[in-house]
Amino acid sequence: MNADSRMAYLRLTARAARIATIGEASAVLNWDASAMMPPGGSAARGDQFAVLASLAHGLATAPEVADDLAEAEATPPVDAWDDANLRLLRHAHTRATAVPADLVEALARTGNTCEQVWRTARANADFAQVAPHLTELMALVREQAQALAPALGLTPYDALMDGYQRGITAADVTPVFADYERFLATALPQAEALQAARGTPIPLEGPFPEDLQESLCRRLSHRAGLEPEHSRLDRSTHPFCGGTPTDVRITTRYRTDEFAQSLMGVLHETGHALYERGLPAAHARQPVGEAAGMAAHESQSLIVEMQASRSDAFLSWLGPQLLETFGGNPSTFETANLSRHLRKVGRGFIRVDADEMTYPAHVILRFRLEQALISGDLTVVDLPGAWNDGMHNLLGITPPDDAKGVLQDIHWYCGLVGYFPCYSLGAMAGAQLMATARREIAGLDAALAQGDFAPLLGFLRTRIHSQGSLHGFNDLLRHATGKPLDPTDFTAHLTARYLGGAGAPPPH
Amino acid sequence: MNADSRMAYLRLTARAARIATIGEASAVLNWDASAMMPPGGSAARGDQFAVLASLAHGLATAPEVADDLAEAEATPPVDAWDDANLRLLRHAHTRATAVPADLVEALARTGNTCEQVWRTARANADFAQVAPHLTELMALVREQAQALAPALGLTPYDALMDGYQRGITAADVTPVFADYERFLATALPQAEALQAARGTPIPLEGPFPEDLQESLCRRLSHRAGLEPEHSRLDRSTHPFCGGTPTDVRITTRYRTDEFAQSLMGVLHETGHALYERGLPAAHARQPVGEAAGMAAHESQSLIVEMQASRSDAFLSWLGPQLLETFGGNPSTFETANLSRHLRKVGRGFIRVDADEMTYPAHVILRFRLEQALISGDLTVVDLPGAWNDGMHNLLGITPPDDAKGVLQDIHWYCGLVGYFPCYSLGAMAGAQLMATARREIAGLDAALAQGDFAPLLGFLRTRIHSQGSLHGFNDLLRHATGKPLDPTDFTAHLTARYLGGAGAPPPH
Repeated sequence: MNADSRMAYLRLTARAARIATIGEASAVLNWDASAMMPPGGSAARGDQFAVLASLAHGLATAPEVADDLAEAEATPPVDAWDDANLRLLRHAHTRATAVPADLVEALARTGNTCEQVWRTARANADFAQVAPHLTELMALVREQAQALAPALGLTPYDALMDGYQRGITAADVTPVFADYERFLATALPQAEALQAARGTPIPLEGPFPEDLQESLCRRLSHRAGLEPEHSRLDRSTHPFCGGTPTDVRITTRYRTDEFAQSLMGVLHETGHALYERGLPAAHARQPVGEAAGMAAHESQSLIVEMQASRSDAFLSWLGPQLLETFGGNPSTFETANLSRHLRKVGRGFIRVDADEMTYPAHVILRFRLEQALISGDLTVVDLPGAWNDGMHNLLGITPPDDAKGVLQDIHWYCGLVGYFPCYSLGAMAGAQLMATARREIAGLDAALAQGDFAPLLGFLRTRIHSQGSLHGFNDLLRHATGKPLDPTDFTAHLTARYLGGAGAPPPH
Repeated sequence: MNADSRMAYLRLTARAARIATIGEASAVLNWDASAMMPPGGSAARGDQFAVLASLAHGLATAPEVADDLAEAEATPPVDAWDDANLRLLRHAHTRATAVPADLVEALARTGNTCEQVWRTARANADFAQVAPHLTELMALVREQAQALAPALGLTPYDALMDGYQRGITAADVTPVFADYERFLATALPQAEALQAARGTPIPLEGPFPEDLQESLCRRLSHRAGLEPEHSRLDRSTHPFCGGTPTDVRITTRYRTDEFAQSLMGVLHETGHALYERGLPAAHARQPVGEAAGMAAHESQSLIVEMQASRSDAFLSWLGPQLLETFGGNPSTFETANLSRHLRKVGRGFIRVDADEMTYPAHVILRFRLEQALISGDLTVVDLPGAWNDGMHNLLGITPPDDAKGVLQDIHWYCGLVGYFPCYSLGAMAGAQLMATARREIAGLDAALAQGDFAPLLGFLRTRIHSQGSLHGFNDLLRHATGKPLDPTDFTAHLTARYLGGAGAPPPH
């Protein structure tokens, strides 16, 4: 890299750091809006987000960026991290400049209106109410996809997916999901039959006071490795992980009639938070220092929640903690009984309530429908019918109304298309990582049986967190597990956990 | 205003709104840093503040602002609010452009370092540790004052004061404070003697659990008129009022051995918050829609805390609330006893712990010393000695160490000079406003005796809050009370409250 190229590169990284710092401010304000802000602050907060976004966009698309990129690329950096960073800076610039400013603005405005109307429409289970807004929004999202596609050399739908997880296309996902659909068609009835044969577990008897749940959640989150001096746990209607890498904010919600939702929810968000905490500090505020994408992120939450925290090993440690916290009948907290509460399969209408086996069916449905919406093969008017048909084909059930169907998720109604596949790609990657960790770390389950996440966290820090965005999704997995995404680890995990008959290996 | 002038004016207001919105984001992040942020987030937060400040500064000092100002001023707005706003936009531009960018940066950097060192120095009561940093910082503040002075047509010290309260100069303040010093010399010993003659009040017996204090504070704050849907009450080491006009955040701290600090503290911050809530929404995010200055702000916190909430009328309502909340011996909560706890005078070292009679002495000391620091008549090395001499002259006491003396307040150590007079000007303005309210509103004290702030709040909303920055400090008071600042209302209030003998009018 010659001196001019180096100077141009350094100007770009300084600018990227400034943009990222604005993003941090927005992230904290976003957490605040969900967890702290009184309702009367909402209009002003919307303006604050808009101004910050426009300042960041202005920095990202300033004319000198194109010149600096060309200058830096003339003799690219030798260092692998800088080289990857420069490519990511180019990628971000391409995305930021491909969509005309008035379209960006129309997307934000229409998305905002549509989301507001959706809240009412969902409450009323009345799709017709939001349909015109969604039609308008989807037309804009199509325009956005068509603007991004040639710039990125991707199909329109892939260009949208690229915004959430680089390096994965619909062509990669389609066969994976088709295989999973086949697996599910036989595995789900078997799992249901085995579950029914086992009979009803002893009920976990509440109430489970919110403050006891909260202090237990906090303790478990810290035990999993999230440092109190760099994190908070608060409450919000929709649980999430936000904030910044040195100041991670996770949230959950509590209900007093059960504890699993908050407990497993916090462990899930802790998985996300640990990823943020483990990102390479030397590359903070640079694209290469960020998480490798939303599928990668979901792999980290799901390996902590689904793979580790719902394993027999961990549950054998968790049971006594629960008994100590909540009291009650000791046998309800024994591993065999606890696992039947925390690892139930079943056909339901709601994605966020789904178990790990049926969850991909919800994602497959959305993946197919949103591709059709973007290609124009499906109109918004026909969407509820297509949803209900798809649900029937995949899980054999038909939603009683659109609130339990097409209206359940916020994503499309605020213009997020191409995100859904990340959930299941993450689940598959999480299983693949866990299989590797179990192979490589002899005492992994023994440690979890002591409530000790350290061996697993060490593995994830080295193989995933510290890698930032140095690799694409498949290369990251190759680096960590020796192979690109391989969904058979996920189906093997489900088979062992839910179909393990008398002769099968012990479930984990 | 012709069309070109109007267009220029509208460009200026759009820019001002953008700057103000960035300021709102900073304000929420600042609240978060004090009330919520885990310690590990502090470095990143500093960067976030710096980036937001530099973006706002960039917008404020962009070359086109000077052109737009000149164009708009060519035919100034006819509307009084717009006219005042344009003058304030000019004033803000003058302040923003008068100080060279490298000096602004040096002030921020040195102020930050000095403040860090001050924290340790104060903990160690070791002025020598921070002296070199304070010397460097004061040199920069002097430079800043000298840069601002010619641009504003003010003396250097007045140019600093102007940053916190426009329209007040040292020449205005000096005689007011000299009069007060004379008043105090006779009033304080008299008040102390009367207090001693009354004997010790019945002790208020704790503990006072934090959660009970917090819910009472919240209730009182709402009762005083602060709407829950536009505000929060949280905890922080140093109580303050922050956030934005539609989303006000107040904080306090609790100790279980007494409740007065949090209770009166929350009522104080509620006074600030009510001012923000009452600002003219039609002029939101414009200079003319902001509070009229820090002295004006302090008048609103002190009228609620000192004038209303410590009055016999309000205490007669508060007593039963306290009894109901905390239980204990009913006679301790009777007005006569309660007032002797909540209205004690005494000579102390610490400004923030001072009663309303001695508080101005703390301010007078600082006002004199900081003028001498800026003029160069006093060096930082001689500051602790000058402090102790001044304290002895004003209150007859000498601090045992510098932690209880010159090191107690953060202001100078982060570069804030010219702020201190606002506290006492606010106290005086608060007394003047209360005297007017009592004259004009027949049932004012009767309402307070029902715990009803509505008549007082109505008066403040009409006379002060809704006026924004339409008037300067003295014109605001003239508008509200028929006269500019008149400190005799404050001394009359103190005389009635603390020196009211047998023949005096009843204390309020």
